[in-house]
Amino acid sequence: MNGADLLCETLLANDIDICFANPGTSEMHFVAALDRQPRMRCVLGLFEGVVTGAADGYARMADKPAATLLHLGPGLANGLANLHNARRAHSPMVNIVGEHALDHLRYDAPLTTDIDALAWPMSNWVGRVETAETVGARTEDAIRAARTAPGGIATLILHADAAWNPTSAAPPARVTLPAPVAPDDRRVRAAADALRNGRRTTLIATGLALRAPQLELLDRIAARTGARLLAQQSNSRMQRGAGRVAVDRVPYVVDKAVAALADTEQAVLVGAKAPVGFFAYPGKPGSMLPEECRILELVEPGEDIVAAVELLADMSGATAGPAPRLAPRMRPEPVTGRLTPDAIAIALAHHMPADAIICDESVSSGRDFFGKTYGAEPHDFLQLTGGAIGIGMPLAAGAAIACPDRKVITLQADGSGMYTLQALWTHAREALDVVTIIFANRRYQILHGELKNVGAGEPGRNARRMLDLDNPELDWVRLAAGMGVEGASTDTAEGFAELLRTACTRKGPFLIEARI
Amino acid sequence: MNGADLLCETLLANDIDICFANPGTSEMHFVAALDRQPRMRCVLGLFEGVVTGAADGYARMADKPAATLLHLGPGLANGLANLHNARRAHSPMVNIVGEHALDHLRYDAPLTTDIDALAWPMSNWVGRVETAETVGARTEDAIRAARTAPGGIATLILHADAAWNPTSAAPPARVTLPAPVAPDDRRVRAAADALRNGRRTTLIATGLALRAPQLELLDRIAARTGARLLAQQSNSRMQRGAGRVAVDRVPYVVDKAVAALADTEQAVLVGAKAPVGFFAYPGKPGSMLPEECRILELVEPGEDIVAAVELLADMSGATAGPAPRLAPRMRPEPVTGRLTPDAIAIALAHHMPADAIICDESVSSGRDFFGKTYGAEPHDFLQLTGGAIGIGMPLAAGAAIACPDRKVITLQADGSGMYTLQALWTHAREALDVVTIIFANRRYQILHGELKNVGAGEPGRNARRMLDLDNPELDWVRLAAGMGVEGASTDTAEGFAELLRTACTRKGPFLIEARI
Repeated sequence: MNGADLLCETLLANDIDICFANPGTSEMHFVAALDRQPRMRCVLGLFEGVVTGAADGYARMADKPAATLLHLGPGLANGLANLHNARRAHSPMVNIVGEHALDHLRYDAPLTTDIDALAWPMSNWVGRVETAETVGARTEDAIRAARTAPGGIATLILHADAAWNPTSAAPPARVTLPAPVAPDDRRVRAAADALRNGRRTTLIATGLALRAPQLELLDRIAARTGARLLAQQSNSRMQRGAGRVAVDRVPYVVDKAVAALADTEQAVLVGAKAPVGFFAYPGKPGSMLPEECRILELVEPGEDIVAAVELLADMSGATAGPAPRLAPRMRPEPVTGRLTPDAIAIALAHHMPADAIICDESVSSGRDFFGKTYGAEPHDFLQLTGGAIGIGMPLAAGAAIACPDRKVITLQADGSGMYTLQALWTHAREALDVVTIIFANRRYQILHGELKNVGAGEPGRNARRMLDLDNPELDWVRLAAGMGVEGASTDTAEGFAELLRTACTRKGPFLIEARI
Repeated sequence: MNGADLLCETLLANDIDICFANPGTSEMHFVAALDRQPRMRCVLGLFEGVVTGAADGYARMADKPAATLLHLGPGLANGLANLHNARRAHSPMVNIVGEHALDHLRYDAPLTTDIDALAWPMSNWVGRVETAETVGARTEDAIRAARTAPGGIATLILHADAAWNPTSAAPPARVTLPAPVAPDDRRVRAAADALRNGRRTTLIATGLALRAPQLELLDRIAARTGARLLAQQSNSRMQRGAGRVAVDRVPYVVDKAVAALADTEQAVLVGAKAPVGFFAYPGKPGSMLPEECRILELVEPGEDIVAAVELLADMSGATAGPAPRLAPRMRPEPVTGRLTPDAIAIALAHHMPADAIICDESVSSGRDFFGKTYGAEPHDFLQLTGGAIGIGMPLAAGAAIACPDRKVITLQADGSGMYTLQALWTHAREALDVVTIIFANRRYQILHGELKNVGAGEPGRNARRMLDLDNPELDWVRLAAGMGVEGASTDTAEGFAELLRTACTRKGPFLIEARI
């Protein structure tokens, strides 16, 4: 057994049996080891942003890490943007990054880079395996780091000779994970007291607090205490739709967020961060909460958020109170005519099947989605958590692999979609049950709004050339076909509804170019 | 005038009038400033790897830097792989990376990252502009860093409020660049002496030593002293073809490189690094030169390589010797039948026009190119310098913008091409005169060879799933069409030759899928 074999076996012994990969020469012994392990499912991405984004989607839906395999510093660099999103989502992940043989580093061969420096900004843990003898222990460290609540990015740098040299290390064992950290009673008590002190209170939740059972408890707490319940602006995963609690999110736009929270005297953060502006703007506040607002954190990072919500429900008397308010199944009036984001949301409310997984990278165009889909079939809603665009189609790939029996629907802005369009090939290769909806407005629409906000007036030639995706227009049906994914284009509400209905009644990848 | 305006004007005052860009909200004031400067040409890339690769191609052909505009840490991260290649090519470049307003950093907004940490591994200089008052001086520092020989990557991190705040700083001046560092006489003398000591000597050249006049001098030195002349394995830019010196490169494959250099007793490095293996392999050497080989460096980094070559020619008596040996125009016998890499090289030898620029990312498939094209029309040959794949089509975009009157031909492996295929859209948007040849072998061919080398035997299911690009096959003609680039596909030598001939007699972007 060589180091690469031991690494594979350690992953498998810890229930990590999916490896999203784009290997290179320095990883070839690891590839050979994977080839000897048919239990490991290897999924190729044609660009590393696909690899890391898919591992994120997988982790969000499987609640456990996948492995990735990346080629040296540049391969890691290509995957960093989606690692950034995954880190913000607290998705567990074990990255294996190949590195030159230890002795080869002194030659400064062309691909040599400072992998640690590149890894740290987007990782919670970084480690190096320099010898075959240390593969087992370091891999266990990485798995432990990835799986310790709330979940993190572990990046294991594997020297080529550590992979190819034989090892006599003990066979892999299942890593002992630290027990969940119980919530702090006094902290929860303080929140419960605050909820009863008569001040206007907003509960802001994220993470595991947005799963259906926890949202039901939070709704009962809110109902019992008169507080308002909101989700954080951007969340890893949120369970919603008919039969579930209808929760709004903190708005993205600064003025709207400030207005929405203007009367909040107390905010109880349920795993969430205090809401801040995604960006700074001259003369606008950075914090979305009023200056005098009191902020209470229900849990500290790593504490058991599920237990904390249960304890808060008990302490606030909600458990003894009325049942949660659940959204009924609702079908908004269908619309016809020119296709709009609103019409897309309405069609989704009608046709998305039960237990669909929505991967949302619709950016500006998807802001109407929530309003129309509180009563859609129950679904999971996955967001762009770190603002690094290019997550939608990779995330969908990972979610579909984690949940092969569920329909995945991607709401994909065209500008962001171009960042990692290679993911469509993985949809085709793996025959994933993913419907990709491209919001084809032919521009970075959000930036047109921002340019207007800075008072630059009508965009001139240079600004238009940087913010518009026209001349030539992208043809997403051809792009998809080039990667083996069937697609169709439409610019009417009724055409879209029919395409979506059809796509939702069959299996396999499909792309709809929604010309809005 | 605000900080963003001053930044633009400082760039323009220093002859930097191209900005390859993919901006975001935090760069919107800079976008507005660019919009007020019609002298600045803004070129949008639909992914940052396109942006940085294009800036590299531009710098290699224009011999001066372009600016790039990147959005925060993730935007920079997406551009890092091609920055790595550019740094290895010593291409001058000024990256403007947006950053949150200084006061906003404390909120840890979703896109917040450690930009310095990300920038350093792929930059020669990193600086931060925290206030509008310091924009001018820091921009000048960045330009100086980029333009100091041999050229470097300068990354300027621009806080949003430094861009939007007014500045009373002095109007921009042209940066005084350090004078070229004269070569060290004793160092050159030592090389000249070595060339006459009767030992078998190889001159290994790169950088500016590979322009036509310097190659002629080096050839005369070699002829005069009995030395052999080789180019480094991978080079930023090399002038070759009919009427120029025919120079081979150090082979890529370790065994071949070792064999080629086995009888070298002395190596004179003309700007080059001592040749090393691209990767380490068990039981194979890391250095390609024999252990006992004496190594002489003609110049130190930053020294004037052109002057050093001239001095060496004088000192070695070459200037008084015979004229250089220049390759005649040669047209290899055309071939027909199944398309092969060899047939592609032969067609290129026939049809590429004079002064073409070849951007080579053909990886394993392009290894036959040199042998068939020593007598092609004179051309510039640009390579993948850092091994980070995804450079070819972006590099071509930049080269075409630097040299609008010259035909650019990209030799593009399919696997590498998928990394930054978005560059095709920029080819179309800017109506660039680029012919892209896709070597469509439907696999990471180089890795199949490497897997064989590690003794893994026939690849099994997992290995094939990571190394093959089939199932589904990519359709490059559709991918190109989806981005507005016309294309055609062929699998015969005569079909390819005809497509290439046609593409070379018309202007504008065209893609040939060469099914080899």
